[in-house]
Amino acid sequence: MKKINSKSLENTPEAGEILKTASKTFNASKKIYLTGSKPEIKVPMREVIQTNSIGKEGEHKNPPIYLYDCSGPYTDPKVKIDIEKGLPKLRESWLSSRKLKHPEETQMSLAKKGVITEEMEFIAIRENQNHEENLKLKNGNFHQGEDFGANIPDVYTPEFVRQEVASGRAVIPANINHPEIEPMIIGRNFKIKVNANIGNSALSSSIHDEVEKLTWSTRWGGDTVMDLSTGKNIHETREWIVRNSPVPIGTVPIYQALEKVKGVAEDLNWEVFEETLIEQAEQGVDYFTIHAGVLLRYVPLTAERVTGIVSRGGSIMAKWCLAHHKENFLYTRFEDICQIMKKYDITFSLGDGLRPGSVADANDDAQFGELKTLGELTKIAWKHDVQTMIEGPGHVPMQLIKENMDLQLEECDEAPFYTLGPLTTDIAPGYDHITSAIGAAMIGWYGCAMLCYVTPKEHLGLPNKEDVKEGLMAYRIAAHAGDLAKGLPSAQIRDNALSASRFDFRWEDQFNLGLDPERAKSYHDETLPKDSAKVAHFCSMCGPKFCSMKISQDVRDYAKKEQEEAMQKKAQEFKDLGSKIYNEV
Amino acid sequence: MKKINSKSLENTPEAGEILKTASKTFNASKKIYLTGSKPEIKVPMREVIQTNSIGKEGEHKNPPIYLYDCSGPYTDPKVKIDIEKGLPKLRESWLSSRKLKHPEETQMSLAKKGVITEEMEFIAIRENQNHEENLKLKNGNFHQGEDFGANIPDVYTPEFVRQEVASGRAVIPANINHPEIEPMIIGRNFKIKVNANIGNSALSSSIHDEVEKLTWSTRWGGDTVMDLSTGKNIHETREWIVRNSPVPIGTVPIYQALEKVKGVAEDLNWEVFEETLIEQAEQGVDYFTIHAGVLLRYVPLTAERVTGIVSRGGSIMAKWCLAHHKENFLYTRFEDICQIMKKYDITFSLGDGLRPGSVADANDDAQFGELKTLGELTKIAWKHDVQTMIEGPGHVPMQLIKENMDLQLEECDEAPFYTLGPLTTDIAPGYDHITSAIGAAMIGWYGCAMLCYVTPKEHLGLPNKEDVKEGLMAYRIAAHAGDLAKGLPSAQIRDNALSASRFDFRWEDQFNLGLDPERAKSYHDETLPKDSAKVAHFCSMCGPKFCSMKISQDVRDYAKKEQEEAMQKKAQEFKDLGSKIYNEV
Repeated sequence: MKKINSKSLENTPEAGEILKTASKTFNASKKIYLTGSKPEIKVPMREVIQTNSIGKEGEHKNPPIYLYDCSGPYTDPKVKIDIEKGLPKLRESWLSSRKLKHPEETQMSLAKKGVITEEMEFIAIRENQNHEENLKLKNGNFHQGEDFGANIPDVYTPEFVRQEVASGRAVIPANINHPEIEPMIIGRNFKIKVNANIGNSALSSSIHDEVEKLTWSTRWGGDTVMDLSTGKNIHETREWIVRNSPVPIGTVPIYQALEKVKGVAEDLNWEVFEETLIEQAEQGVDYFTIHAGVLLRYVPLTAERVTGIVSRGGSIMAKWCLAHHKENFLYTRFEDICQIMKKYDITFSLGDGLRPGSVADANDDAQFGELKTLGELTKIAWKHDVQTMIEGPGHVPMQLIKENMDLQLEECDEAPFYTLGPLTTDIAPGYDHITSAIGAAMIGWYGCAMLCYVTPKEHLGLPNKEDVKEGLMAYRIAAHAGDLAKGLPSAQIRDNALSASRFDFRWEDQFNLGLDPERAKSYHDETLPKDSAKVAHFCSMCGPKFCSMKISQDVRDYAKKEQEEAMQKKAQEFKDLGSKIYNEV
Repeated sequence: MKKINSKSLENTPEAGEILKTASKTFNASKKIYLTGSKPEIKVPMREVIQTNSIGKEGEHKNPPIYLYDCSGPYTDPKVKIDIEKGLPKLRESWLSSRKLKHPEETQMSLAKKGVITEEMEFIAIRENQNHEENLKLKNGNFHQGEDFGANIPDVYTPEFVRQEVASGRAVIPANINHPEIEPMIIGRNFKIKVNANIGNSALSSSIHDEVEKLTWSTRWGGDTVMDLSTGKNIHETREWIVRNSPVPIGTVPIYQALEKVKGVAEDLNWEVFEETLIEQAEQGVDYFTIHAGVLLRYVPLTAERVTGIVSRGGSIMAKWCLAHHKENFLYTRFEDICQIMKKYDITFSLGDGLRPGSVADANDDAQFGELKTLGELTKIAWKHDVQTMIEGPGHVPMQLIKENMDLQLEECDEAPFYTLGPLTTDIAPGYDHITSAIGAAMIGWYGCAMLCYVTPKEHLGLPNKEDVKEGLMAYRIAAHAGDLAKGLPSAQIRDNALSASRFDFRWEDQFNLGLDPERAKSYHDETLPKDSAKVAHFCSMCGPKFCSMKISQDVRDYAKKEQEEAMQKKAQEFKDLGSKIYNEV
């Protein structure tokens, strides 16, 4: 591991600033850990404490709600963070003993052999939130999901995780040189995951900004983070990001390779690419986007498109192919790439270099031709025991989304799909987190395993911190809506708890159970700023006399009273009749 | 028409302020009118002028794009607006001549008799944007829609509009006392419409705020506006809104009736309700939400719900029913209500008082019981030639949305559905414009005719001006995504034009064709503020050397050059062979 060396961060107030925002705990929340079969299998969760309900029959307690937590050690007040040193190395002991017992093995090869790794056990625990409450719920207000042939269990077990990894239906991106991560899984039989892109460009942004965006992303629910830096300090920026990331990091190595040949796509070659792969693999990058499906014969299929080729990696490789009139070297050298991936247990994210850049171009021959090739490459990667996911679009109108999902499952033998949105319309620059959250929720429901977020700045500029949060909120919504629709056991309990608190006028619980407690509270306070309003049995929309929820509670009480009166009347009649059970006829 | 009298608005700077925001024209846009068979049938559209493309072969022109425009006369610099007097009375002459020729008729009764009204002709023109370009598009980059058995024509004709109104599949909300509106239609074979709710409550907001929210709503694409005021000045607020609204206004009359009985639901009675209906009908309200489906027998079905009854109107009627142990008087007096509706040609919006307030309560017996009753009431309303739409939920997880739409079409004989969202998860207070835009886009695609917006303040507070805009942007996206998916002829041209301008680096066109040109431009300028960047052939995400769109253009040029060279080579070979067409064997 190379030594971290950056003047811009060493003991500067900026580093302190990063920690301050990253380490702020959420309201009424406690970081807890569930322990597995070994003490180091310490699985983080956020426990949200609820207040008591106060009804006419006195107080009653509301159970704590447990939330999946990808914010890492930052939100644990007991952990001392030093950005210069990087995060604690959670997986270090697992990795070193595995090196002796199972050298040169990947999560996939071990899974195929029937070995359950520590990562798999960690993940099984992590995917089961509110387990007991969920089982109770299934007997009550719980909707059957529609999972389109997925296979979602009631309870996750390490053995289930192993089977999913062995079959290739799920991946655990975890480079052996990234011991800092808290293991997570990407597959359609698990919670839908969200990726956040960060990274500087030649024009803007600094290392400091990017590390802050990383911790900010995981705080707001980024399950993985891609570092798409293209400017200067590309290696150093990545080092800071990897060492401080509790989540898997993905990159697109061709970006750095292109920097090395001074931006001239034609000058790229296998040697410079191989060197770049090894450089990043050594640093601990967990998954690589590789645009090996951009074949020479597909390139002319994009000529009549409204928006040609919009993937950066795709256009670089297309240009290379045309310039040399040769097949894409990422394709011809694919097995060599597999060897490197396998050595570090890096996961493929097979890039969709020919994804549509407008709804007009969705589902065309170029896109689906490439998808077929990605399916072929998946089988080769699996032969080498390299975990593989497939990247997907992009811009797709709603009626064409399902075809993308169905075809991907078919062509790629159920390897996890990882899509960018898709955006369901092109007409809203400045709001593409919303145009794409619609498509993301739908494709998540249909079976997409991970959603790459889109920020409001998409197509317009580089996202700042606030944009990163807006993008993540939209995508946490999309992923959760998808989980609910698939019928994921852990999903509906949070909705029900929040709705119950809403109906009960437990304002603080409503804020705290939401995705963004601070915003919810501040919106409430804009119209009803006083503390007393937070316990008021009404809200600003209707005022005290006119609240439907209040009236609805009255209706309940009334209905109950009516019922009791009817019972009493019956009882009285019974007494009047001499308390005999059968009337004498 | 009662005289408008409000100290708070007369010649105050506030009135000027309203006009200033409402009358600002959009960038590079011109208000144009298409004229029908009579000069007063002047149908507004927004023409967006595009810049020229500059390629290697010189400049070429890009056609103007025409957008549906519900901003009213405010955005026409030639119209002098006087908020105190109200808008020009576009429909006045149609209504007065109709009064002589067809007294006591509604749009529906006339449609049934084969009469095409001026409103119908106006609407047919309005629904056809970019007609010629669309037909060209159909031969090129255009996707077939999936409309689930709707019947969307290539070109709208007045006769088509008449048939849709006659069958009850579409409504034209247009009170004979609201001559100021520009007619519009709500039905699943037309463009999906969006409603914006405004209105003060007992706790907050003023008349001034509400009129400003009205003009602000129509500016950002509100096709209708509901005035849900519940506080003081309820009559006066409405008068200002109706007189200044270019779009149909809806209300929930039971709110005002409840004010009249001092907020005591049990004290409501037919007389006070009838008086309120007539008062609002006289003012010109175009559609009334009437909660006539909340039947006594359905109320106990809500007792075990997570969130009981959440509709204000629904809970008022439920309380009334229980208190008197009588059937809902809106149900028993439904034919009397029809008489009033018919006289003014007011459209029913049959309220879903038992809609779910949480995903847990979606699609339950209470909700679907009420829907069945709304279907029965629809037939009664149609017998009286009263136009009718049906309100729908609410909170529904994705996998249960289609059932709502299918059942509504079946139970209500294809009367237009008008839903609030639905929200696809309950976990994001502060972001419910997004949780619900997902459901709204889907149900719009499935056949919902109008989407009631949800703002970020939903469940938390009253929306301010900025929230109204955020809600409208999310819902214009949802509606447009739905139109695209249904295959509406006018929808995809805007996407294609915007995407073409994006690929062409025509930054200004990209901003101007978007839903919110100002935001798009300001986001772009955050990273690349200089004017020169607006003509730059790259953007801030990748920088000048690293732009996929730029590379992609190079690919196109390269491919073309290769092709030409191949042709020349072939030509040379041909020459070398002595220019014979067939080689002698």
